[in-house]
Amino acid sequence: MIYCSNCGNPVVEMIPEGDSRPRHVCESCKTVHYQNPNIVAGCIPTWEGRLLLCRRAIEPRLGLWTLPAGFMENGESTEQAAARETLEEACAEVDKLALYGVFSIPQINQVYMMFRASLANGSFRPGPESLDVQLFDEHEIPWDELAFPVVKLTLERYYNDLRTNKFPVYVENIIRHPHRKT
Amino acid sequence: MIYCSNCGNPVVEMIPEGDSRPRHVCESCKTVHYQNPNIVAGCIPTWEGRLLLCRRAIEPRLGLWTLPAGFMENGESTEQAAARETLEEACAEVDKLALYGVFSIPQINQVYMMFRASLANGSFRPGPESLDVQLFDEHEIPWDELAFPVVKLTLERYYNDLRTNKFPVYVENIIRHPHRKT
Repeated sequence: MIYCSNCGNPVVEMIPEGDSRPRHVCESCKTVHYQNPNIVAGCIPTWEGRLLLCRRAIEPRLGLWTLPAGFMENGESTEQAAARETLEEACAEVDKLALYGVFSIPQINQVYMMFRASLANGSFRPGPESLDVQLFDEHEIPWDELAFPVVKLTLERYYNDLRTNKFPVYVENIIRHPHRKT
Repeated sequence: MIYCSNCGNPVVEMIPEGDSRPRHVCESCKTVHYQNPNIVAGCIPTWEGRLLLCRRAIEPRLGLWTLPAGFMENGESTEQAAARETLEEACAEVDKLALYGVFSIPQINQVYMMFRASLANGSFRPGPESLDVQLFDEHEIPWDELAFPVVKLTLERYYNDLRTNKFPVYVENIIRHPHRKT
């Protein structure tokens, strides 16, 4: 942020009175511009024991496989966001959403909220952000071609829990670059 | 948003190519400015069977009682945010955080993430945003003086579950103005 989105004058980085963190502050109109983490909502969609993954048609990680997920929009609930992303990326309707993982990634200011879900009618096809969409049996999962650490973690937890058919809600943090951890 | 925070020129509201929602777009530098929901993280802190509430020293709802909660900051995990807010508002250290509720409030683009927690050492006092901080037995809860619907909902769920001592994770939506629902 370089300019104030309210008045167009340059902002400065400073700690506002009564605050403890540096913010972008406009000295002309006095607006404090807060920046906060984003929610990425997604699904673990299954159909007849198989799990749906999307092959990314966009950067980052173009060509790698991911669970359908994306930024929650204003005006949505977390479940609506997860279902919408699945519809957009895999043209698949889902139901029976159940929260499974809340994964904070502090380095990139994201919180993933992953829901277990069932395909509503078994139909799917690639949306504009996917090169391919497929159902996988566990032994077919492309573990070495997963797009993001959060996808690998979610799938590891899921297949482990599937053995007991007990699915708690995980609240975990993903430190993607431990050497950068402060 | 009126001006582009990247180049200072006026933005327009339009649906970018390949998108389906109106965004603030800068026609000069082509930046698309996304706006997304914020996470409000908080605690249900207890000590020896009593529950901690804060009386708000700031608007909105000045003078009413609330659970300690506030906007998650960049660089935090959800649990860190909930613990920090409790420290700031009630000068109380908490431990044993356990996710209890994910409450979407689509009308105001917020997602509350509420954690059950224990006071670490039983000490607390009002922080700068609180007029008062007190521990309450269930029959003392000021039900008619709670600051927000999400606080009432969280406390209702909590005291109901306390009877069985079973605490699932709730994923619910709070529609504060049903007549405005679209």
